[in-house]
Amino acid sequence: MTSLGGALGGASVAPRALSGDAAPLADARRLSFNQATAERHPLGDVIDACARNGVPGISIWRHKLADAGLERTARRIRDAGLFVSSLCRGGMFPAATATERAARIDDNRRAIDESAALGAEVLVLVCGAAPDRDLAAAREMVGEGIAAIAPYAAERGIRLGIEPLHPAFAAERSCITTMREARLIAERFAPGNVGVVVDVYHVWWDPERAAEIARLGERIAGYHVNDWLVPAKNVLMNRGMMGDGVIELRRIRAEVERAGYRGPIEVEIFNEALWERPLDEIVRLTKDRFVEVA
Amino acid sequence: MTSLGGALGGASVAPRALSGDAAPLADARRLSFNQATAERHPLGDVIDACARNGVPGISIWRHKLADAGLERTARRIRDAGLFVSSLCRGGMFPAATATERAARIDDNRRAIDESAALGAEVLVLVCGAAPDRDLAAAREMVGEGIAAIAPYAAERGIRLGIEPLHPAFAAERSCITTMREARLIAERFAPGNVGVVVDVYHVWWDPERAAEIARLGERIAGYHVNDWLVPAKNVLMNRGMMGDGVIELRRIRAEVERAGYRGPIEVEIFNEALWERPLDEIVRLTKDRFVEVA
Repeated sequence: MTSLGGALGGASVAPRALSGDAAPLADARRLSFNQATAERHPLGDVIDACARNGVPGISIWRHKLADAGLERTARRIRDAGLFVSSLCRGGMFPAATATERAARIDDNRRAIDESAALGAEVLVLVCGAAPDRDLAAAREMVGEGIAAIAPYAAERGIRLGIEPLHPAFAAERSCITTMREARLIAERFAPGNVGVVVDVYHVWWDPERAAEIARLGERIAGYHVNDWLVPAKNVLMNRGMMGDGVIELRRIRAEVERAGYRGPIEVEIFNEALWERPLDEIVRLTKDRFVEVA
Repeated sequence: MTSLGGALGGASVAPRALSGDAAPLADARRLSFNQATAERHPLGDVIDACARNGVPGISIWRHKLADAGLERTARRIRDAGLFVSSLCRGGMFPAATATERAARIDDNRRAIDESAALGAEVLVLVCGAAPDRDLAAAREMVGEGIAAIAPYAAERGIRLGIEPLHPAFAAERSCITTMREARLIAERFAPGNVGVVVDVYHVWWDPERAAEIARLGERIAGYHVNDWLVPAKNVLMNRGMMGDGVIELRRIRAEVERAGYRGPIEVEIFNEALWERPLDEIVRLTKDRFVEVA
């Protein structure tokens, strides 16, 4: 792993394009290709395609990592010279029984170990939904789960990034749906230990968006771009390539940068039509759109 | 029109079942059948089915009203002895040009006239989405639109009810997505002039839900029940009958009643499978579930 992601996280290396109020162009050195954007392709091929097309960073999903093998993947990423912005995903804390909740904690510890082995900066937490109808109880379990793994993550130098998901996922994936709610949990811990991942797909609609991004400040543990397509059909698969939807990407990036964030920017797109395209075409389109509109 | 809806809105007639902290059963005298729940049937038939099955209230959509005729519908509702909890819908204020925005204002005035002719207590406002990507500008247009029609509504005794929609509709139907945002607009006007409609489908996930319902207090201009089905597919059509999904209906009703709301409770369900059933079956199922689980 190179330390480019880490270097970009430091205030002293803010790229030229980022000076001023709203950066006119996204700096390609910050681009991290989230592997879910090429879901149909094996992880090894995606690593090579990033290196081949000048994409400096990658974000990795655990189910793909399990297929490809941890040691082998870590070596391949090192050899390709990519930085790893994040591992997706930990979380999923709420469960009906104490035994099951403990098993989820154990799995999160394994995810932290994997993050460390890959040199990932952040473990993204998708917090999980209520096992029954009780949202308040589920939110408690999330707080308890993060408290249970935070020291383990700190010891291994892995930052936890709570990713609030769009409210459309509240019943099935995450009872944590707003930046405000994620921030209130994160603030129980040191900023370098637990932060918040801002994904435009999940937060673009929020009337508190700009204010919350400002409040997050150094808590921002990652920034993800994509787009919201219109008309929306299947909400999970409604993500599009930057520029194809209605999200004010430049405005949100300016908000995130005013808050002080200078780290990697991940492109994460779940989209069947995109997934069917050839790998190099996906990676090149991602890079082009990233520079043009993100 | 009978004045049952209005009577239930008064503090002096709080039904017995509503004393105590959380009403164990919903009082069927508060039930209003939103006509969209039987979308495939003509309005006249729905009015008759409500009367025949002991459903005391109805909520009417304007496209159905246009088909059935205003005067004729008003007479039929009077004859059936139903109260009209609301007319759906005004709003849709944001538009790309001043001419188009003025046309929307005119249309809202017509909706207010129709509400008055029907004896509806509330005109529900679905506020509209941004004509381009600019959410902040669209929100401004919503505030301006409501300000333009509020005096006209007050003169005719019609209350405007801003309905925040689930964030999944932010790109296509309403840039107003949270109770908090709706409340901040409503507070520019007298409570009897502009309130907020609380629909569980749109707000159940909100971490600020209980606090915002309490803050709304006398601003609550309507309460709508249905359910959020799992797994979610098409978000617009993901509504289910009360009890078939994951929404904590009793808890939310208790919150609304603690805030002081004693008015009609509408059942509004957009669901293809339900729509295909015979009209009397839909109305009876609605009433049964309303009493059992809402």
